[in-house]
Amino acid sequence: MLSHLWHLIIGSPLPTQNLAHERLDKIRALAAFSPDALSSVAYANQEIYLSLVVAGSAGLAFSWPIGLAITGLLIIVATSYYQTIHGYPSGGGAYIVARENLGTLPGLIAAAALTVDYSLTAAVSLTAGVAALASAFPALWAYKVELALILLVIITVINLRGIQESGTVMAVPVYSFLGAFLLMIGIGLVRLIVEGPGHLTSVAPPAVQSLTPLLVLHAFATGCTAMTGIEAISNGIPAFRPPEARNAGQTLIIMAILMGMLFVGSIGLTQFLAVIPRAEETILSALAHRIFGESPFYFLVQLSTLLILAVAANTSFADFPRLAAILARDGFLPHQLAGLGDRLVYSNGILTLAGVAGLLILLFGGDTHALIPLFAVGAFLAFTLSQIGMVNHWQRTRGKHWKMKAFLNGLGGLITGATMIIVGVSKFTEGAWVVPIAIALLTFGFMRIRDHYRDVAQELSLSNVADLPTSIPPRPRIVIPISGVHKGIVNAVNFARAIGQEITAVFVELEPGSGEQIRSKWAGLWPDIPLVVLPSPYRSLVGPLLDFLDETDREHNDGQLAVVMLPEFVPARWWHFFLHNQSAWLLKTALLYRRRRMGFQRVIIDVPYHLRR
Amino acid sequence: MLSHLWHLIIGSPLPTQNLAHERLDKIRALAAFSPDALSSVAYANQEIYLSLVVAGSAGLAFSWPIGLAITGLLIIVATSYYQTIHGYPSGGGAYIVARENLGTLPGLIAAAALTVDYSLTAAVSLTAGVAALASAFPALWAYKVELALILLVIITVINLRGIQESGTVMAVPVYSFLGAFLLMIGIGLVRLIVEGPGHLTSVAPPAVQSLTPLLVLHAFATGCTAMTGIEAISNGIPAFRPPEARNAGQTLIIMAILMGMLFVGSIGLTQFLAVIPRAEETILSALAHRIFGESPFYFLVQLSTLLILAVAANTSFADFPRLAAILARDGFLPHQLAGLGDRLVYSNGILTLAGVAGLLILLFGGDTHALIPLFAVGAFLAFTLSQIGMVNHWQRTRGKHWKMKAFLNGLGGLITGATMIIVGVSKFTEGAWVVPIAIALLTFGFMRIRDHYRDVAQELSLSNVADLPTSIPPRPRIVIPISGVHKGIVNAVNFARAIGQEITAVFVELEPGSGEQIRSKWAGLWPDIPLVVLPSPYRSLVGPLLDFLDETDREHNDGQLAVVMLPEFVPARWWHFFLHNQSAWLLKTALLYRRRRMGFQRVIIDVPYHLRR
Repeated sequence: MLSHLWHLIIGSPLPTQNLAHERLDKIRALAAFSPDALSSVAYANQEIYLSLVVAGSAGLAFSWPIGLAITGLLIIVATSYYQTIHGYPSGGGAYIVARENLGTLPGLIAAAALTVDYSLTAAVSLTAGVAALASAFPALWAYKVELALILLVIITVINLRGIQESGTVMAVPVYSFLGAFLLMIGIGLVRLIVEGPGHLTSVAPPAVQSLTPLLVLHAFATGCTAMTGIEAISNGIPAFRPPEARNAGQTLIIMAILMGMLFVGSIGLTQFLAVIPRAEETILSALAHRIFGESPFYFLVQLSTLLILAVAANTSFADFPRLAAILARDGFLPHQLAGLGDRLVYSNGILTLAGVAGLLILLFGGDTHALIPLFAVGAFLAFTLSQIGMVNHWQRTRGKHWKMKAFLNGLGGLITGATMIIVGVSKFTEGAWVVPIAIALLTFGFMRIRDHYRDVAQELSLSNVADLPTSIPPRPRIVIPISGVHKGIVNAVNFARAIGQEITAVFVELEPGSGEQIRSKWAGLWPDIPLVVLPSPYRSLVGPLLDFLDETDREHNDGQLAVVMLPEFVPARWWHFFLHNQSAWLLKTALLYRRRRMGFQRVIIDVPYHLRR
Repeated sequence: MLSHLWHLIIGSPLPTQNLAHERLDKIRALAAFSPDALSSVAYANQEIYLSLVVAGSAGLAFSWPIGLAITGLLIIVATSYYQTIHGYPSGGGAYIVARENLGTLPGLIAAAALTVDYSLTAAVSLTAGVAALASAFPALWAYKVELALILLVIITVINLRGIQESGTVMAVPVYSFLGAFLLMIGIGLVRLIVEGPGHLTSVAPPAVQSLTPLLVLHAFATGCTAMTGIEAISNGIPAFRPPEARNAGQTLIIMAILMGMLFVGSIGLTQFLAVIPRAEETILSALAHRIFGESPFYFLVQLSTLLILAVAANTSFADFPRLAAILARDGFLPHQLAGLGDRLVYSNGILTLAGVAGLLILLFGGDTHALIPLFAVGAFLAFTLSQIGMVNHWQRTRGKHWKMKAFLNGLGGLITGATMIIVGVSKFTEGAWVVPIAIALLTFGFMRIRDHYRDVAQELSLSNVADLPTSIPPRPRIVIPISGVHKGIVNAVNFARAIGQEITAVFVELEPGSGEQIRSKWAGLWPDIPLVVLPSPYRSLVGPLLDFLDETDREHNDGQLAVVMLPEFVPARWWHFFLHNQSAWLLKTALLYRRRRMGFQRVIIDVPYHLRR
């Protein structure tokens, strides 16, 4: 019944042969992978404005140069990832590049950094989306945690249903956001040409801080959050239609161009139209107000901003499960994360991400501002490792123009590395200190898991027939623990006769004196099978039985362990489960987890008796 | 390790032979069973005052008559329970009496009513205790739920350690409460004689309502909450030292006398000293103030009131587990509730009560006032059923003075029944409507559980040898599902050879093409055992395997079901559990819960392989 409910929610299982068809065309892939990157333009503008406005109009005059510088950096990073996609067409992004070129440890650090960033992206985007919604409808503030969790559940279910459908669902908000913003920038340009530029000096608030190089650098660093999400496509190449790498590369270029246009266009218009927001208004809202007035187009821009923030969380759902599957295949995460679910998506990875994001939302009370300082450090660490890795890649492969390519990647790595340090240091006391600790713990965990799998593989390796014992063991000695004399044990006794050579029944006397009645009933039915009644002064079922098993093995001293045959009730209804002593379950657990010196475990035979009522 | 932690908290296991010694002497028994009854005196006074003060001094003049009437009722109920203890010395109180004299259904209704009341007593006493504490230290109000839960955990642990120790721990608050209150009443009497009575008319607030018979009746009904808890001893007789019934009866008489003295003394002094509380002061606090002034004795009275409220919850812990054990022995609750734990207490009953009380505290946000209206209805229903049952008992047994005894019980039953109706009706809309629903659901549950156990007993009954099959079944066909070719399956293959007649290995091909490699490795090692590779287009492990088993049974058509032999990893560390596909577990669950038309279940053989690292 649970299984039916599950398939009602996520759809019927899909056969493995459908796999090749469950791919995204470029239109849908852009919708699936770009929301994180595109929506981060929105808050990057805000961060730059807030950093510069403290220095008045002289500060704000740096918006446009900083915008251009970040766009330049965006071109470098996009170029690097374009090269990466063609160099590593099976996906994996920063993890693969860093691992192949710098070694396992840097690769795992990059993977840990991405993992932290994906979890935060999911949580931050949802809380920011809810905050935007609640700004429009203040009554919803009280329910921000609940609303964020409801959105999380919706996005999780969409992703569990399968990626093609999720690409379709995501297309609406992404393309309406793009349409609304490109329209705004176009009309803004026309107004700029027709009306001429505004004058910042006459509208900007007075400076409260002097304009220092440090202040400009800090504004640049905070604006770099515009670039989070650009790595998404390089991790998600296998979701593209074949030829995967080519389609992914083209999609990356289109996305980077759109990001650049939105970013440079909006930040340029803000400066040259001399836009200054009201109190409690975002800079983008002020720009839209300036260009559209109170027309419906203003509300369209705001609504599409809300929606793209809400679906930005989906980028993490498109990417984290793939990264986790690659790590699981390499043995750094549990194997279960590498298996495709009923709908040909990595269901376990999706559910893991949903769990972590839900926990972050709960822990931080749905507060975006509390989460933001943790954000971006992970992404820039991954960028840096990936680009340093690409420098090494060009040095090793030495293709055409390798020095130029290595220089571009080296420059990119240097700048993203510097940005990471600036972001990390300036937000350290606000919570960014958690991120390096989380990355270190994750990296350590990855290595412990890999070590375990390697140990097990060595322990289990079975290369030739010489490893096998040649003799067939004798028929086993069998011990049947009984809870009473009833029909439920008849099958067990018969099966024991069929396979065993020496059968003993055992009754543990929990209440002193209760064994006598059992003994006489038993003797009437199975006079040829001995029944041992074990006293249990501490009313423990398991203890006396385990002691008896050890003792009987010692007495026989035939190199064999007695086999335990458990007659077990299978209840007719689920709630009946609670009405029968779970003694069979207790015994099995105790037997499985009791270590043996010889490393050989006792065999357990379950003989179920199905209760009809 | 978990088991060590458990024994550190609750103490080492005690042998069953200690059982007779783990009994309470009368001093400790009074401490263990009386806090509920004694502490209810405190709020009954308050309820009577609040009911009467609306009619001014004319109303308050009825305090003393009402106090005397309730004391009269107390004598009747105590007499009835004294008779019950001697009539039913193995305990069970209202349940036993109602069941034996009125039938199973009334007995179960009484048991359900007591169950509801015990849960509420535990929750209400803890929240009231915390409220009293928080009144003294207002900073604690914000943590009232947490504090109530901490108290609950402490009381649970004390009870899990064993009742003798809990009697010892409880003795301090109970006897300091008794000492403080008896001292207060004694000094109050001296002051009354020395100073002469006060005049209510000069101090009482003006009447806002006229004095009607209904108002007096309502005050009487609310004051009857003083009697909740009086039944505790009759349920707990087996916890007394032998001779149990005699000791329990004497303890009941002592408790009833103390209750009466405290109640009549305090309510009489309140009226004759003309005590009127300040705003936000309880009537008992006002009385203590009047008698002791601001001396340390006033604080002693208040502190001991707080403490006895906190430990009143313990009465439920002393009684509910015993009632649950009796119900479990009669087959109306799961058998597990009838078993004595490591420390010779009914651990499962204690934990169940702790869970329910904790849930009530959480659901009602630690608010006593929200819980109070649910309270007392259950207790009075149990009283009524018990006393009507005793009437029947006297009619049947017809001993000395049986008419007088039956009359007393009948009168008591009539009055408690009327009280129950008045309390239920007057508090119906405040939440008391939940109680009859809960009692009905519990009663229904008891009967469903009994029906199930009866059905199972019938189904399993095995009265003579003719029921047993005479032929020994042949050696079984064995199917071994494998996840790969490694050392973990060597033991399974050897064991299969020892006991089986036809062995087949099965590999489910989750990834298309993965079967080929397995097949060739298998053929090199075990050429004489066939390996079947099953395709799995929907990547399900369990589905294809179950289908294969059904099919092979159909082909062989020998009246046997193939036995499934599962090679299973036992990890060396707990966290390794998450690193291996839980396929063995999944398969076992699917096999156990798949119903067979023939009602016979497939045998499952676990061959564990213990991983060393």
